[in-house]
Formats: sequence, structure tokens, C-alpha cells
Amino acid sequence: MFSRSTLLLQQLTRKNAHRNISFKQLNEIKPILTRNLAWFSGQSAKQTFGGRLKRRLKNLLIVTVVGVGTFYSYRGYRRYKWYSEMSDSDKTIGTKPRIVVLGTGWGAVPLLKHLDTQKYEVICVSPRNYFLMTPLLPSVSVGTVETRTVIESIRSLVGPRVKFVEATCINVDPKAKTITCNNNGEQNVSRGDDVKTIVAPPSRESGASSRIIKDSARTRPQFDMKYDILVVAVGSENNTFNTPGVEEHAHFLKELLDARRIRSAISDAFESAMTPTQTIAERKRLLHFVVVGGGPTGVEFAAELADLVREDLQHYFPRLVSSDVKITLIEALDHVLSMMDKKISDYTERHFRRENIDVLMNTFVKEVKQREVIIQLKGSEERISIPCSVVVWATGIKARPLTNRIREIIGSTIQTNRMGLLTDRYLRVKGVEDGSIFALGDCATIAQPKLVDQIQLLFEEADTQHRGSLDLNQFQTLVEKKVTEFPQLEIFSKSIEKAFAEADKEKSGYVTLTALRAILEKADQKIRALPATAQVASQEGRYVAHLLNQVTDIQSTDFKQQNLKPFQYKHMGALAYVGGDSAVLDFTGSKPVFDLFNLQPLSGRSAAYLWKSFYFTEMFTGRTKTLLAFDWVRTHIFGRDISRY
Amino acid sequence: MFSRSTLLLQQLTRKNAHRNISFKQLNEIKPILTRNLAWFSGQSAKQTFGGRLKRRLKNLLIVTVVGVGTFYSYRGYRRYKWYSEMSDSDKTIGTKPRIVVLGTGWGAVPLLKHLDTQKYEVICVSPRNYFLMTPLLPSVSVGTVETRTVIESIRSLVGPRVKFVEATCINVDPKAKTITCNNNGEQNVSRGDDVKTIVAPPSRESGASSRIIKDSARTRPQFDMKYDILVVAVGSENNTFNTPGVEEHAHFLKELLDARRIRSAISDAFESAMTPTQTIAERKRLLHFVVVGGGPTGVEFAAELADLVREDLQHYFPRLVSSDVKITLIEALDHVLSMMDKKISDYTERHFRRENIDVLMNTFVKEVKQREVIIQLKGSEERISIPCSVVVWATGIKARPLTNRIREIIGSTIQTNRMGLLTDRYLRVKGVEDGSIFALGDCATIAQPKLVDQIQLLFEEADTQHRGSLDLNQFQTLVEKKVTEFPQLEIFSKSIEKAFAEADKEKSGYVTLTALRAILEKADQKIRALPATAQVASQEGRYVAHLLNQVTDIQSTDFKQQNLKPFQYKHMGALAYVGGDSAVLDFTGSKPVFDLFNLQPLSGRSAAYLWKSFYFTEMFTGRTKTLLAFDWVRTHIFGRDISRY
Repeated sequence: MFSRSTLLLQQLTRKNAHRNISFKQLNEIKPILTRNLAWFSGQSAKQTFGGRLKRRLKNLLIVTVVGVGTFYSYRGYRRYKWYSEMSDSDKTIGTKPRIVVLGTGWGAVPLLKHLDTQKYEVICVSPRNYFLMTPLLPSVSVGTVETRTVIESIRSLVGPRVKFVEATCINVDPKAKTITCNNNGEQNVSRGDDVKTIVAPPSRESGASSRIIKDSARTRPQFDMKYDILVVAVGSENNTFNTPGVEEHAHFLKELLDARRIRSAISDAFESAMTPTQTIAERKRLLHFVVVGGGPTGVEFAAELADLVREDLQHYFPRLVSSDVKITLIEALDHVLSMMDKKISDYTERHFRRENIDVLMNTFVKEVKQREVIIQLKGSEERISIPCSVVVWATGIKARPLTNRIREIIGSTIQTNRMGLLTDRYLRVKGVEDGSIFALGDCATIAQPKLVDQIQLLFEEADTQHRGSLDLNQFQTLVEKKVTEFPQLEIFSKSIEKAFAEADKEKSGYVTLTALRAILEKADQKIRALPATAQVASQEGRYVAHLLNQVTDIQSTDFKQQNLKPFQYKHMGALAYVGGDSAVLDFTGSKPVFDLFNLQPLSGRSAAYLWKSFYFTEMFTGRTKTLLAFDWVRTHIFGRDISRY
Repeated sequence: MFSRSTLLLQQLTRKNAHRNISFKQLNEIKPILTRNLAWFSGQSAKQTFGGRLKRRLKNLLIVTVVGVGTFYSYRGYRRYKWYSEMSDSDKTIGTKPRIVVLGTGWGAVPLLKHLDTQKYEVICVSPRNYFLMTPLLPSVSVGTVETRTVIESIRSLVGPRVKFVEATCINVDPKAKTITCNNNGEQNVSRGDDVKTIVAPPSRESGASSRIIKDSARTRPQFDMKYDILVVAVGSENNTFNTPGVEEHAHFLKELLDARRIRSAISDAFESAMTPTQTIAERKRLLHFVVVGGGPTGVEFAAELADLVREDLQHYFPRLVSSDVKITLIEALDHVLSMMDKKISDYTERHFRRENIDVLMNTFVKEVKQREVIIQLKGSEERISIPCSVVVWATGIKARPLTNRIREIIGSTIQTNRMGLLTDRYLRVKGVEDGSIFALGDCATIAQPKLVDQIQLLFEEADTQHRGSLDLNQFQTLVEKKVTEFPQLEIFSKSIEKAFAEADKEKSGYVTLTALRAILEKADQKIRALPATAQVASQEGRYVAHLLNQVTDIQSTDFKQQNLKPFQYKHMGALAYVGGDSAVLDFTGSKPVFDLFNLQPLSGRSAAYLWKSFYFTEMFTGRTKTLLAFDWVRTHIFGRDISRY
């Protein structure tokens, strides 16, 4: 120890030789220096308790100072970067091609994050100024996770180089390359605004806080905006399948306010049931919760609700929970989670029985009334009324009005898909000649041409010798050449001989047009639209960003020539929370990483940890990650809050 | 070390001597035992880095296991206690006198927490099933603190021995000792329910999430409830002073939904201002926020808003903030925070100038329109229009309909105070003969009899010798005897000679009736109603709880005889947050602790720490404390969220 400080002193002496510092002065510093170095190395301090404590406190102090210092410098640097980027992007406005992105959901956000803002001016237009972590909505609707945890302001998410305008796009003009936003005639109700745009209730006390304020903070003049490239990622809305009463009496679970409203309604039902003079029948009705739709949303909501009842409401309302609470899940098909592996559906159904969730399979909801749901079993004519209070409708999606408007403008002869905008495999909307409109996520469907529609052409092209039949080589060439255009040909690529042998039943070594048609029809059956999931949308968003970043000439519509690859979906598996600290995971069809490990469908507690860690890594920012972790710990320790506001 | 384990082994050997365990077997255990004991003592492990790390990890593991174990046992114990208390209180229903408490605010909660549930059956009735930490509402309205942080479910707060019924009391029958709840005719809108009971907006897209659901989870039949003692703690509502337009266009800041709505409106204003084609004048109007009322609520809201603008919105909207944002505070008196020390008002006004908050003193608001506020300066006839967007009205309070209903039933000849229920000094409502109704908090005013009204009686009683005048001794006896009944006499108690000399201008040694009247009038001027603060309400709540716990005979109305003391308010000081990490504290009039230290009004950063620590200690449960601490840290690190929903 001392040798080190002596060495240091010698160096100092040498360095300061030309100055007027005497060795004597340095000798005075020596003990101070020694002591200080001893602190850091922690060696010369005696190993007494006091000494150790002192040393540790010093270390703690140093760590704290360094940590806090680093944090503030980092924050300062980020602020500086933010402002410089903001002014940089301001300077270049008008000099770059403009990309307008409609939407702030799962498709739009990855797109906005990955677009090269050096190359493009990027503007995002959406009526919702935040990104919503939709898969956590069931958790929000019972209070496991708080509302602000699952949202992130779009401005902080995509940074200052992307301009954001909170507006509703109502029309698109593909000729003039212009969008029109905000309808002057009617003040559109954006999500979250229902509280304010609605007239006052009839029996309002004056001076009470629960009245409605006529909105003065909201003026949205109509405006037009030019674009060079438009990306439509507006998502979908809930499909009621024209079931009467759903609009008026059922809750959806698609936006944040839905979750808030459901949480309030659940609490309301319990408080109503606790009111004196309530009849038993009415109490049972009030505490009967019905979920329509056995997809991931419906299943997860039923599971979260069962958790809420068992873990928290039982504590506060033990008698109600033990005698009157009932949760029913209604599914039209013969399995819940039918898009997942059969094993998973079975597990979920067994698990739900244990959790006291009634599952009605093969059951259709014919009508939703204010205090009942009318169901009908498959193959039966009888309609049964189920008295209930909160009904959550989670069955399916349909196109938004803007999507339909764009389809209309392009023409329904080209845009034949009622579910959304048909695109080519580069996600460009079909029927837009200059290819300047892209569509992705729930509002888009990639057109997948059928092989049989073009069989004549394909056959003639493959039949190079014009003999009216193909041999194995020609068939192989056909498959290899066309697999990018017709991805359904992939099913042959693994065992081309087997496929050929199947077609060539007479073992002649040749297949005729008729035989070819038979096996190509089989391939066509494999065509399936991509599911309307967050996973698909986010991959599409990222794909379009990289595509546009790579495009050398945005005027040219021939992407093949520019060496650009079409979109290819990589399924990473599906997962759902089923309550009681259990989740299910399905890796079927995922490739290539998970297939390597040959992962089986997972269920139970270990799957729940995977489920949690997945959402934890998926959350976009440090803020939401911190909040989510805190929420989970808070729910575990303190339970869910049952206050109703 | 080894000696200890050897000792242990010897003991084991002795113990097991009668069994068939040989010493050889024990010898095999010895090294294991030694190692394990060494772990715990940490002595024999070598002080290498690996050894220390290992030891520390072990220690950490032990601490974790013990900690987690303790937590779960504690939670288990609390659950067990909860259920046993619940069933205990169920068994004794009907055998104990019933106390019905109306309200879940600052008065009701301390009362409910301190009432002896062994002695009484306690039922709480309120339309709001949670306690709201009202002083933090300004923080909630800008997002510094989240909504769920400032509320705590009443059920978890007061435990299972207090029954809670979510209902609105609409009538009281003091003769039959019955309350009536829930008006069957009209479904009363409880706080937070406006989202659901209101008709749909005109231009709703079908399938959109922002529609309104007709409520099926809410049926509240009318019911009557008997009581032995009724405590009215229903609070107050906002007073508009009949200013036109306030009801329709101004926000209040009294309930949680108000705060949520204001937060949404602020964000809306900024998004509206960012819309293209917005004129400069409209932008300036949209970003002009007006706060009416310079009391603590108004001041704190203006301060929090300035914080939000400077710390977060400036980051996202730098141009708007630097050129267009304006905050105006309007106060009718010539000072803000006029109930506090003059120094504090001055400091706040100076501080607000630094924070760019315009303060208009001596200004009256004559009307609030949708997009403007009409003001008038004191002494002027001219009306000035201020274009603005969000208007927050925080001027004063008035009685709730139920309070007025009770006053009406008792009769306005006894209940002369329009602000609330007049009570005696034991907080029993005047005019209720059996003393079975108590009132406290904002809805109650303690009647303070004037000395001059009873001067004849007082004089005759004091003039024991019937000579038509009082000497110093008689005067002193009068003051001492009557000071409990007339607290305003306290001003004489310190210097009774001086007061006497003042009255006895002729130095005759006697005071006449006229002279006495003069000085008693002076004392009467000191009568002041207690302020409508959380502090008063919570002391009153605690007082009534202790009073009722001590009462030996609830039939008897003579509390003096039972040796019960009337309510005495102890002012602990006042405090307010004024933004920019500064707060003001005023200890004037507080006694006796703070007076001892002779504390001066505090302001600035140190006061802000006191402000924070005060709220931190004041939060009722571990849950809310944890959430509050987390919210403050979160806001500091990540800033406030500007998403609007």
C-alpha cells in the first residue's frame, strides 16, 4: 500500500521538479494521499466492525454518486439529442419524400421506429395519441395491471423526428395523393372522449362533480395533407355479426376505456348485490358474468376475472363469492382457443372447470338484452335466456369505416375482400397504380393467387417440350420457379418425388394437366390468410420500414428488379394466460428456432412464467417495463383495488 | 468453531445413547454439521473472494427466505384475523346499538377506524366506495401521481367489522330513527358513473369502443335502515355562487373523475393546438388555462400545471410552450392564500411570477362561456373577455342536498346556517331532541353562542351581591366559569386585569352592564367558524369516535354529567405546494407543539420536502404509501405520461 503511494509521490516530485514545490510540501500531502488510496483499495483499513462499516458506507456513497451522476448525464444527453434531432428534422422539411402513416397500433409503431428519417419525412396521423399494449387489456380490466402501464405516448415512443398529428383520417385521394382529416361537419368522438361530448344525465345535482363539461379544449379543423407514400395501419373494430343488442348492452375489449368500464361494472355489480332488500334471483343475476368468444381475448378475460374473484373479491365479499358468483364462457365452435393445438384447448377446458368457469361449447348468442343473453345450442331450435349482468363480447373483428372507404374508392372489383384491403406480397394495396399506398396489420390481407386459376399458363410454361405432360424434372423446375409467387407450393418442396408419384398414379413418369390440377388444388387448400394478431402486424410494420429504407427509386413499382424480397411471416408461437398462475403456449408452426428444439405445447405454471417474461421483454420502453414489474409485485402483495370510479 | 460442533455432537450422542446410533455414524455427520455451523457463523470460512461471495450469497438467501416467510405468515395471519372478525361481527348483529355513518371522506374514515366495534354495530353508507386523498387531486390532474394512488377502498380501510353499503342517502327521519337510501324513481348518478348512465353521442360509429353501454350491473332498490346513532359526514359540493356558465363549462376539482377529466382536457388542448391549419389566435386560446380561486386548491393546481408544462410538455411541444402557453389565476381578494400568513401570500405571488403564472387579484368572474371567461376588476364596471380553454373552478363550497334536507326536516328556525348543519360543542345536531344525530366535517358548523345575546343572564349570575356592577374578582369568576361554554372568553384569560382595566375606564374598580357589553362584544368578534379543511374533519371524526366509545349511557343527552369534554380543535398549521419543488407552510395559530419552537412560515425547497413527507405519513395504508413513493420516483425519472384516454 505504502509503496504505491510512495511511487505516486515520486512521480509527482519528478513532474513538479521544474515547479517550486519542495519535497517537504509533498511530504505533508503524503499521509492524506495514503489514507485516500487506502479507502479505495480497502486494504490498509483495519478489519474492525466500525472500519468495515465506514468503508462500506464510503463505497455506497461512491456508487450512489457515480450512479446518480451517470443517470443525470444520460438524461441530459438524451434531452440534448432530442432537441437537436427535432431542429434537424425541421430544417429538412419539404426536401425529402413524405411518408404518412395512419395508426398508432402494433403495425404502425414498429414501422415508425424503423423508418429511416434521414431519407423520409415521416408523419403519423391517428385519433389515439398513444400505443396500447392490447394483449394486456384483460389484465387491465380487472386491475392486475394499471391503465397507464399498458400505454406509451406515441411522441415519446417514436422520438422527435417523426411528426405526430392527432386527427381522424376520413378520406384518401390516391390520384391527388392527399388525405383528408377531421370531419368539420360532425365532431368525431375519439376514444376516451365520450366522457365529455355527451349530454348531461337527466337527474344531475347542481354543483356535483359527476356532470359533463361542454368541451372547449377540443377544436379540430378539417385539413388536407399531401403524401408521397401512405401506409394504412388503422386496425379493425369489433364485429357484432349483426347480433341484436350487442352494440347497446355488451362490453367490447379493444380499447383502454373498455377495460376501465368493465372494471367499474364488475365492482358495481358486487356493490349492487350487497344492497339490502336485493332478491336472491337478482343477486345471482348481478353476479353472473358472461364472456362471448373463446379466442385468446375471451379466455384471458375469463381467466383474469376468475383470478380477481378468487384472490380479492372473495376476501371482501366471502358470502357472495361462495354462493352467487358465476362466470360463463360461450363459444360457437366445439373448442376454446381453436386456433391453437388440440392439447391446449383440452388443457384450458379442464383448467377452467377447476377454476369454476362454465364453458358452453357449440353455443350461439342470438341476442343480448340489458339483463340477459339469449343463446341457442347447435342443432337446436330452442332459445334459452341466461340472466346476467356484465357481458363481454370478444368474438371477432371487421373493417373500419376508413378501410371500407378506401376499398370503395379503389373499386370493389379489385378490392374483393370485405375483411380489409387486399395487398400484393410487398404489402402494396392492390388497385393503386403507382404503388404509393401500403396497408398492414388487421386492416390488410395479402392476396394469395390460386395456382388453379393460372394452371393453363403454368402448365404451358413448364411444358418446355410441348408434349402435353410434365416429367419429374419439369415439375421440380415449376415448383422451384414459382414458390416465391405461390408460397403454397412450399408443401411440395420437401418431398418433390412423393408429390410427383402421387399425381402420377399410373407410374408413367409423366403428369397430365388434369393430374397436375388435382395436386395443385391440394396446395391451394393450404392458402390461409394471416391471423389478425399483434405478431403479424408488427412483423409487417418492420418489413415495410426496411422495404422503404432499401428502395432506391420510389417511383418505380417493380420491386423485384430492385432486388427486394416480398413479405414472409415467421410464426413465433401463440400464448394465452388461463388464470390461476397458469398459461398455455403453442409453438406449432413456428420456425425455425423453436422447431429445432421440437418444443411441445406448454401449459401450467412454467408457461405462466414464460408468458410474463414475454410481455416483460415485449413492452416497448423502460418506463412501461418498470411499471409492469411494479404492478405485478403490487398486485401480489396488496391485491387488486376494488374502488369504483 | 470446532469445539461448538463437538459439543453439539456430544449432546446428540448422549441423547441418542439409548438408541442404536453408533458413534461412528455420528462421526460421519460431523463434517457436515461443522460446515453448516460455519456457514451461519461465517468464521471458519476463509476470507478469500470466493468464500466471502459464497457467504454473502448464503446470507442473502437466508434473509430472503426469512423475509418472504415472515411476509406470507403475516399475510396469512391477517387473512385469518379478517375472517374471524367478520364472522364475530356477524354473530352479534342486532344485540348492539347501531351507528350509521354517512360518508367515506376525511371525517367518516377516522371515525370508522376508531369506533369501538365491540360496543357498537357500525354501518357505513356512501355512494362512493373509497376514501379519496383530496389534497393530492391537483397532482393527479396533471399526472404527477396516478389515480389509484390517492384512493383506498373503504372495505380494506376499515376492516371487516364495519359493514359498508354503497348507497345514496336521500332522507332522514329523526323521529323514527330511520334513513332512506336510493331513490327508486330516479337512478341517482353516483360519482364515476357518468360514463355509463348517459345516452349515446349522436355520431357514433358502430362497433367503436367509445360508445356507451346501458348499465345492467347497477340495480339499487330503495331501502330503509334503522339507526340508534346517525353520524352525518357527507361533506360539501362546489359553490358556483350562481355565476352563469360555471356548471356547463368549468371543471371542478373535488372528485377523482374531475382530475381525470382535467388531465384529458389539457392533453386535448395541446393536440388541438398541434392540428394543421389552426389559427394563431385559436392556438393561443387553446393553450390558455384559467384557474378561478386563489385558495390552496387553485394555487396547487396552477403550480402543478406549471410543473407539467415546464418539465414535460416543453419537451414534447417546445414551440407551443415557448410562444403560446399561458396560465392565469383569478382571485377575488387582494391576495392568494389569504387564509395563510401575509409573508406566504407574498412569497407565493413572487414565486408564481417566476413560474410564469399570471395572477389577477381583486378580479371577479362574472360568467364562464364555452371558450372564454368574462371578468370584472374590483371597482370597475367594465367586463373583459378572456379567451381560454380549460377553466378550473376552485372557489368555495356549499351544502349538499342531503344536508339541506336534514335542515329542512329539523326546521330552519333552529338550523339557521345555510352552509351546513348547526351542532352543539359535542357535534350533536341542534334540534334533534334525543341527540342521536351527529354531524362533522364540511357539512357541519359548531354553533358558537354570542356572549351579548345572554348578557343579562350572565351579568345577573356574576353580580352575586346584586349591586348592579362587577368587581375584578366577580369578573374573573365569570370568565373562568363560562370559558368552556363561550370559548371566545379565552382572549381574556391571559390578562384578566388588563381587560378589566380597559372596561373600567373610570378606574372605579367596578364595571357596569354597559361596560361589560362593550368588552364582551369584542370577545364575540373573535368567533370564527372552523375552516372547511381535512384537518378539522379528521379531528372531528376522531373526537366523535372517542366520545361514543366513552359514553356510558347513550340515552342520556347530558354529556357534561358523564364527564365528557366538548370538541376542541387543534390547528397543526397549513401547507400548500406552489410548484417548482417549492411549498409553503404556515404554523400561525398552531398549538402547542409548533408554537414552542416558535416556527416561522416556511417556504421554498425545504418546505417542499416537509410537504412531501407530510403526505407520505398521512397516506392511510402501506399500499397507498408504496404507490405514492413509486409515483414520485417514476415522475422524476420518466416524466409524466401525456397519453389521452
